[in-house]
Amino acid sequence: MPEPHPIEIFIPEIRMLIQNKQFDELRNLLSEINPIDIADGLSRFPQEQQLLIFKLLGSVRSIEVFEELDMSEQQYLIQHLEDQTIAPLLEGIPTDVAAKLFKKLPERFVKKMTILMKKEKIEVVQNVLEYPAKSAGALMQTEYIVLTVDMTARSSIERLQASLRVRKNMLIHTLYVIGNNGKLLGGITVNTLIAAPPDIKVRDIMSPVSLLKISAKMDKEDAAKVFSRYKLISAPVVDEENRLMGILTVDDMVEVIQNADTEDIQRFGGVEVLDEPYFKVPFFKMIQKRGTWLSVLFIGEMLTATAIGFFEKEIAKAVVLVLFIPLIISSGGNSGSQAATLVVRAMALKEISFGDWWRVLRREFASGLVLGSILGAFGFLRIFLWSQFTNVYGPHYFFVALTVSIALLFVVLWGTLSGSLLPIVLRRLGVDPAVASAPFVATLVDVTGLIIYFSVGLFLLQGTLL
Amino acid sequence: MPEPHPIEIFIPEIRMLIQNKQFDELRNLLSEINPIDIADGLSRFPQEQQLLIFKLLGSVRSIEVFEELDMSEQQYLIQHLEDQTIAPLLEGIPTDVAAKLFKKLPERFVKKMTILMKKEKIEVVQNVLEYPAKSAGALMQTEYIVLTVDMTARSSIERLQASLRVRKNMLIHTLYVIGNNGKLLGGITVNTLIAAPPDIKVRDIMSPVSLLKISAKMDKEDAAKVFSRYKLISAPVVDEENRLMGILTVDDMVEVIQNADTEDIQRFGGVEVLDEPYFKVPFFKMIQKRGTWLSVLFIGEMLTATAIGFFEKEIAKAVVLVLFIPLIISSGGNSGSQAATLVVRAMALKEISFGDWWRVLRREFASGLVLGSILGAFGFLRIFLWSQFTNVYGPHYFFVALTVSIALLFVVLWGTLSGSLLPIVLRRLGVDPAVASAPFVATLVDVTGLIIYFSVGLFLLQGTLL
Repeated sequence: MPEPHPIEIFIPEIRMLIQNKQFDELRNLLSEINPIDIADGLSRFPQEQQLLIFKLLGSVRSIEVFEELDMSEQQYLIQHLEDQTIAPLLEGIPTDVAAKLFKKLPERFVKKMTILMKKEKIEVVQNVLEYPAKSAGALMQTEYIVLTVDMTARSSIERLQASLRVRKNMLIHTLYVIGNNGKLLGGITVNTLIAAPPDIKVRDIMSPVSLLKISAKMDKEDAAKVFSRYKLISAPVVDEENRLMGILTVDDMVEVIQNADTEDIQRFGGVEVLDEPYFKVPFFKMIQKRGTWLSVLFIGEMLTATAIGFFEKEIAKAVVLVLFIPLIISSGGNSGSQAATLVVRAMALKEISFGDWWRVLRREFASGLVLGSILGAFGFLRIFLWSQFTNVYGPHYFFVALTVSIALLFVVLWGTLSGSLLPIVLRRLGVDPAVASAPFVATLVDVTGLIIYFSVGLFLLQGTLL
Repeated sequence: MPEPHPIEIFIPEIRMLIQNKQFDELRNLLSEINPIDIADGLSRFPQEQQLLIFKLLGSVRSIEVFEELDMSEQQYLIQHLEDQTIAPLLEGIPTDVAAKLFKKLPERFVKKMTILMKKEKIEVVQNVLEYPAKSAGALMQTEYIVLTVDMTARSSIERLQASLRVRKNMLIHTLYVIGNNGKLLGGITVNTLIAAPPDIKVRDIMSPVSLLKISAKMDKEDAAKVFSRYKLISAPVVDEENRLMGILTVDDMVEVIQNADTEDIQRFGGVEVLDEPYFKVPFFKMIQKRGTWLSVLFIGEMLTATAIGFFEKEIAKAVVLVLFIPLIISSGGNSGSQAATLVVRAMALKEISFGDWWRVLRREFASGLVLGSILGAFGFLRIFLWSQFTNVYGPHYFFVALTVSIALLFVVLWGTLSGSLLPIVLRRLGVDPAVASAPFVATLVDVTGLIIYFSVGLFLLQGTLL
């Protein structure tokens, strides 16, 4: 049973406090609820109450709540809050959140934001805006603590303390050491600093970060893979000249990992990626995304009518073959999607690269043969045994059983091979292999599977049924 | 193009150093490679060289590398290393890794381990072993730092420093505050401690952790969701009496999230979950897992032969209907998988709960109608227009076009509804909705779609073709 979001528990109480105008009590209650839950529950209140709740949050927490809101809710707040509330808010939100607002909000909001924000912050945001949306640069935070090699552990901790007084809720795990021109030299974890003798120099305790820095232009999903592989909490983002541009933290990367997998799963299910929660996607936007894929697959499947059309004369003579059309094509489609799923996933996890195509081919050829034989044997037995009791498959039931089982063997083998190799070929051509999703492989195998089936039938049934 | 793992760069150099017996240089080189990369590359060396490399790592790094190895490699090392190397290793590995070894290794290894490990560590490991494999308790680490409410910030930092001297590479983000009987009272982040005045008492700066603690019996995937929702770096694990039992850290949770999604994707592709990398799964184990699913789906699809069998007489008269069998069933199957994908994913992300079934039904009914009309219109046009130029669909092509398009409307509507509601119903029955994977929905819709198709045909073509 899915449990209700924690905010549900508080909603009646918040409603009551608002009604009774007990704003001090409301302020206290709100301070006990996690900002993420407040953000989730905010839309349950009428818009003027949202403003009231938001104003009672206090400056640090209002920033945390704001970060978690949907774009439309952020827009409403920027539109309706007074300037003296928005200014510190805009100053406090992380660069990546501000950059997203700059990019997606209508012109007049951006204008309002730039008037209220400090010049330095705007420059930083514009810097982040120059990176493509899918890059690590677009996701980096520009609030971080830098040290120089000549500082001592003591003075480094003092700098950390000063920063923590200003930004209480910042996730600070590593402090970065820079040299001339802002070039990144190394990093020190907070824990290392604490354990170090106070007078030791930064140069003597810092670690080089040569392998674990992220290029600002790196794809954010690749950056997330670096985080997960090396179990990072934070990582420095650098430009081509190794200058420190910002940092990435694990909480943002967890989101990237989840979204990447959502995209993979949706592509596999034959849906263009929905980037909003199910109920929040506007109906016709959803229809458009789903309809496009269904139509593309539909047009592909129309070829099955053409394929069967070639064999219309034979079908009229041997209607019994029709009974197994869905069984044959679905077996090919299922084995193909299965192989595609395994290979796409293994490529995403870098277990398979292009150089492995020959190993994959050999393994999948063997798999296809074995799986095809299993299903073929099942099919043969079903038809053969059934025919001992009924006459549904006609007098030539033995040849029908043979046709179906041999066709199954070839169709499953063919499905397995195309399902496993298509993603590798697509990757080689520079196409995201996740678009070689299960339904596409299935459509390909449906059409070719029918041709295999009727060809086997023509060959084996010549002289008996045909 | 997938780039090679970083270890590839070092392998030739390591080989050369081993050959020349330059062990000091090798030790230095190894100290510059990330432990995770060493673990990845270890299997590229002959087993006696693996032992050599492992021994050159030094005690802290050998523990880090050991953690990352496959079970079979861990087993080999425990079998072949001298006791004086294994003892500190076993003492140093995290509880969850030790617990996994205890659970999966053969009896004699476990005996060897228990002889070499300290009694206290064995007790802790056995405690962890009591929790089910999928629970947070089985994954928790038991190395953490506890404070009491009467300690000062200064003495807390001193305790932290002492711990960091013993375990250099521990991820310590939060220190936990316990009261009588080990009950959990709150937590303080390292950053809060650093920023606090030295003489302030822990009770005055700690945060209550009421919402953000994890029950030891909680499913680990649910625990990972708490981490991702609240952007946690670490969280305390408690028993029913709120006693602190261990901690979970974000790096382990990232792994849980990735594995959960791999499982989802594999289930959606109609593969039983492979819990090892593609090339490492033994061939017949893979065949067994894939074969089982294909056979189950195959047996389901056999019903399509039965369904078509009911209409055999009609088919003999109207062979033209056969041409569209694959098109009809695949459209139903695709729209069903699409809806199932969206709903399963939305349930996993808690966007949809059982209470929403009516909203989902209404939305999917509307979606199904629109999508079905689109595909139906496509189908009608294709048959109608084609028939202006060829005679492939016979003299009654208008009725054929009408049959196909109306059947498409119903089949897509039906596919969408069953695809979206089946996962919700399964979840309600306590079954993991991911098993209502796309292929299963497709199989269900294949069989019922045929019945819809031929029923529409019977109704519309009575008197013309039939």
